[in-house]
Amino acid sequence: MTKSNPGNYFEDFQPGMEIVHATPLTLSAGDVSLYRALTGSRHALYSAETFAAANGFPALPVDPLLAFHIVFGKTVPDISLNAVANLGYAEGKFLKPVYPGDTLTSVSEVIGVKENSNGKTGVVWVRTRGENQNGETVLSYVRWVMVHKKDAASAAPDTVIPDLPGAVAASDLAAPNYADWNDALAGSNWRFGDYEVGEKIDHVDGMTVEEAEHQIATRLYQNTAKVHFDAHAQKDSRFGKRLIYGGVVISIARALSFNGLESAAQMLAINAGTHAGPLFAGDTIYAWSEVLDKAELSANTGALRLRLVAGKNHPCSDFPLRGEDGKYDPDVLLDFDYWAAIPI
Amino acid sequence: MTKSNPGNYFEDFQPGMEIVHATPLTLSAGDVSLYRALTGSRHALYSAETFAAANGFPALPVDPLLAFHIVFGKTVPDISLNAVANLGYAEGKFLKPVYPGDTLTSVSEVIGVKENSNGKTGVVWVRTRGENQNGETVLSYVRWVMVHKKDAASAAPDTVIPDLPGAVAASDLAAPNYADWNDALAGSNWRFGDYEVGEKIDHVDGMTVEEAEHQIATRLYQNTAKVHFDAHAQKDSRFGKRLIYGGVVISIARALSFNGLESAAQMLAINAGTHAGPLFAGDTIYAWSEVLDKAELSANTGALRLRLVAGKNHPCSDFPLRGEDGKYDPDVLLDFDYWAAIPI
Amino acid sequence: MTKSNPGNYFEDFQPGMEIVHATPLTLSAGDVSLYRALTGSRHALYSAETFAAANGFPALPVDPLLAFHIVFGKTVPDISLNAVANLGYAEGKFLKPVYPGDTLTSVSEVIGVKENSNGKTGVVWVRTRGENQNGETVLSYVRWVMVHKKDAASAAPDTVIPDLPGAVAASDLAAPNYADWNDALAGSNWRFGDYEVGEKIDHVDGMTVEEAEHQIATRLYQNTAKVHFDAHAQKDSRFGKRLIYGGVVISIARALSFNGLESAAQMLAINAGTHAGPLFAGDTIYAWSEVLDKAELSANTGALRLRLVAGKNHPCSDFPLRGEDGKYDPDVLLDFDYWAAIPI
Repeated sequence: MTKSNPGNYFEDFQPGMEIVHATPLTLSAGDVSLYRALTGSRHALYSAETFAAANGFPALPVDPLLAFHIVFGKTVPDISLNAVANLGYAEGKFLKPVYPGDTLTSVSEVIGVKENSNGKTGVVWVRTRGENQNGETVLSYVRWVMVHKKDAASAAPDTVIPDLPGAVAASDLAAPNYADWNDALAGSNWRFGDYEVGEKIDHVDGMTVEEAEHQIATRLYQNTAKVHFDAHAQKDSRFGKRLIYGGVVISIARALSFNGLESAAQMLAINAGTHAGPLFAGDTIYAWSEVLDKAELSANTGALRLRLVAGKNHPCSDFPLRGEDGKYDPDVLLDFDYWAAIPI
Repeated sequence: MTKSNPGNYFEDFQPGMEIVHATPLTLSAGDVSLYRALTGSRHALYSAETFAAANGFPALPVDPLLAFHIVFGKTVPDISLNAVANLGYAEGKFLKPVYPGDTLTSVSEVIGVKENSNGKTGVVWVRTRGENQNGETVLSYVRWVMVHKKDAASAAPDTVIPDLPGAVAASDLAAPNYADWNDALAGSNWRFGDYEVGEKIDHVDGMTVEEAEHQIATRLYQNTAKVHFDAHAQKDSRFGKRLIYGGVVISIARALSFNGLESAAQMLAINAGTHAGPLFAGDTIYAWSEVLDKAELSANTGALRLRLVAGKNHPCSDFPLRGEDGKYDPDVLLDFDYWAAIPI
Repeated sequence: MTKSNPGNYFEDFQPGMEIVHATPLTLSAGDVSLYRALTGSRHALYSAETFAAANGFPALPVDPLLAFHIVFGKTVPDISLNAVANLGYAEGKFLKPVYPGDTLTSVSEVIGVKENSNGKTGVVWVRTRGENQNGETVLSYVRWVMVHKKDAASAAPDTVIPDLPGAVAASDLAAPNYADWNDALAGSNWRFGDYEVGEKIDHVDGMTVEEAEHQIATRLYQNTAKVHFDAHAQKDSRFGKRLIYGGVVISIARALSFNGLESAAQMLAINAGTHAGPLFAGDTIYAWSEVLDKAELSANTGALRLRLVAGKNHPCSDFPLRGEDGKYDPDVLLDFDYWAAIPI
C-alpha cells in the first residue's frame, strides 16, 4: 500500500459529489510580480494602485487570470491526475475582485459523467469555485476532462450531461465602474465605441517560452501535473518532451493582446475555451482577437465579447484559425472566448 | 593589492572565532512566492494564512528551509569560498517561526578544525545561527567543509573535533500546537498514527531542473558560490559545467515528498545531511522517504524522523540508496535525515 | 486600419513635446525579491530594513537601478519601438528614494532631434522622469536613440542638440546620511578614504545569463521591445537570435561589483553609459571598475565616481576596454559612468 496520491479514476466521480481541494493559498504581492514577470502583463488596472483606485477598486486587484490559474491548479490532483485530455471550459464568471492578502480555496462539484464507447475512458464535468477567506465565491467555472477508467470491465454510469450556455449572458456580467479612466496611462485612446463586431486585431508581438518560465509559472499556480515537469518520464511519452500548461498559453496570449486591446483590461467571464494544440519550450506564441459581441453595462462601462486565438511560430497577420476541413490549423494553440470590460 | 574578497583559507579558521556575515536580509512575501514557484512547495501550513492561524501561528510563516537557505547563503563568502567540498550537516534546529518582515543575520562560530594528512587541505566545523531583528536565534546548525590551505607549508593546528549527536533528541524539539488541522485542506487523511517506523514511501513525481531555475533560487538565497553561476569558468572544471547548489536539491526533494507526507509539513530539526552526488541542469529529481523514528510531542502533535533520499533520472520505486559495497548508488543525490511535526 | 501600436517614427518627435507613457506601476516587495533573484544584488542597504533604518531611510528602499529600469521600460512603446540603436545616457539623477508601495509613472520630453545624412534615420534625445504617486520626480535621465524615418522623402527638421554635461556635478548629488554604517554587515571595511582615483578593481566573479532569466527580468520592468522576446522573428535578424536588454547587463555588472565595492551601495547619478556590444543567452558577464573621481558630500558620506565596465566570456583581470584603434574591445559589453555614495 502506498501513501502517495493515486488520483481519481472515471469510476470515482459521481454527479453531485463535492471535492474540497488541498492547499488553500494566500495571494501576495509576490504572486502579482511573478505573474507580470512571467507573462508580460501590462494593463494599468492591474499594475497601478492609483489607476485602480480611480476606477472603483479600493486596492490593486489581482489579474482575474492569475486567480483563475490558482483556483484551477488546486483541482489537478483530484480531477485530472489521470486525465487523458482537458476538453473545454464554459460558464466562467469572475464574481468578486481578488486582492493580495485574500486566501483562496477551491471546491469542485461533479455535474456530469459520460462513459466513452471504447469502455476505457469517460468524460467528467466539474463546476469549480474559488472561495475567499470569508466564504465568498470570487470565481467559478465549468471544465470537462477525459479520464481513464480504473477497470475497463466496470459498469458504465448513467450518462449525465450538464446544460451549458454557449456564452455567459451580458446581463449576468458584474459591471465595473470606470469613473476616471485615463487613456494615456491605459496606453490607448480606443474605447467601447471604437470597436466593431467582426473586427479582427493582429497583436503583432511574439513571445518565446522557455522550460524554466513555464515551470516557474505552473508551480506558482501550484499545478503539479507531471507532464509539465518531468522531462525524464516524458522522454517515453507521445511528444517526447514536457508539455506546457495551457494556462500559460492563455495568459501570454492575453498579455500580447494588450497591443490593440489596451483598455479591455478586466476579464469578466470565460464563455468557452479550447486548447487546440500543444505548446513546447522554444516555441513562440503570437495572438489575434476578434470582436464577437458588444454590450453596454453601465453609463461609463461596456463589455466586448472577444475571441482570442493563439498560434505558435506563426505571426497572426493572416488570422489563422481553421482549415477548409473545419479542423484547427496545426499552428493554432488556443481558441478562447471571453467578455472583457472596457470604458465607454 | 585587490579589494575583492579572497575568502578564508584553512589557516584563517581558529576554534572559538566568531564571524558576523554580510548582508542581512528582510524576508518578504516576494521571497515566499518565489520559493513556491521554484520548488513546487504545497504544504497548506506555509501556503494559507487561514490554515496557519488555525494551527497556532499568528501569521503565515516562512518555510523553514527557505530561512535555512538564506542563513546558509550568507556564510558562503566567509566559510566556503575556497572550499573543496561541503561534507555534512548536523544538529540543525528550527527554534522560532520566521515571518515576512523579519530581518535575518547570520553569525558563525568555528567549533572544530582538523588538517588532512595531505597537508594541503583541512576540515572546518562551524555552528551557524540565524538571528532575527530582535536578536533571537531562529535557527542554528552545524556544517563542516573541506577547505584549501593557503600555504601547504604552514603548521597544522591542534585538532579539535566537535562532539555532535547523531540526531536531535525528540525532547529538544519545539512542539507546535496543531489545534485545528483540516485533513482535506492539508491534502491527506494520513496522520501520526498512520506512519510506521521502517515504512518507505515513493513520492512518485519527478522535477527537471533548468539552469535558470537553480540560478534564480540560489541568488534568492544570496548564495554566490561561483560554481553555480559561471559557465565560462566551469568549462575547465572537473564537471565541465555549472553545479547546482545542494540546497536546491533539498528543497525540491522535500516539495516532492508532499505526495505521501502531506501533513508532515513543518521541519523541526535537521539531524544529518549528505550531498551524495552532483546535480546538473536537465537532470530530473525523484525522491523517497523512510520513517526512521516517531515521537509524541503534545496532545495534538507528534514528530516523524524521516530519511529523505533524492535520486536523479531514476524513479524511486526501488528506493535507491547504497550498493553492496556500502557506497551511495551513482544516481543518489541526497541522504537527508530530519524531524517533521505531524498532527496526531 | 489596425489598433495595434505602430510606435513613433523620427518625424513624430518634435522638440518640446511631452509624452505621458502608459502603465504606471506600483512597486512591491515582490519586485524587490525578483530583482535580487535575477541579478544577485547583495548590498545590505537594499537588503535589510534594519541596515537601511540605521542609515537614514524610514523603510527598505528599492535599488535605484530597479526603479530606473521600470521608468525606462514604460518609454519603449513610445520612444524606441522603431529604434535602430540605443546610443547613450546622460544626466541621470536619483532624486528621491523609492519604496515598495510607491507608484511610478514615466513622462518624457523631447529635447533634441537631428536627421542623419543618409536621410533614412535620425537621432532623438529625450529627458525622461519617473514620478511617484505624489507627483514628485524620483529620478530623471536623458537618453538618445537612432530612430527610423517613416518616409525617407520627408523634410529634415531643424537640428536641435541638447547641451549635456559630461558628468553630474558632485554638488548636485543628494547627500545620504550614513549615520551608523556597519562594516561587517556591509561586507567590507573599505570606505571612502580607502579608494584612490585611478584605482582599478577586478570584480572576479562571473554570471552566465539564460534566456529565461533575461526575459523574466525584462518583463518585470514592463519593457516589451520585441528583440528580447521573439526568437521566431529574430531568426531572420542580424544576430539570428534574441538580444538581451542592456539594462540586464547594467544590473548584473553592478551586482558583480559588490565584490570590491561592497559599501558603494547607493547609486546617486548616471553620468554616461554606452552599450558597446550585444549580450546573448549563454554568455557570461564579468566586470571591473575604475575610480574616476571622489567627492565629500557630508560629514559621514562621500561619493565615488566609478567607471563600470562589463565584458563577456572574458574575465576582467586585464581590465579590457579599448583597443589601440580606440574602439571598444569586441568582448566589452558596457562602459558605464556613475556616482555612488560611500561612508567616510
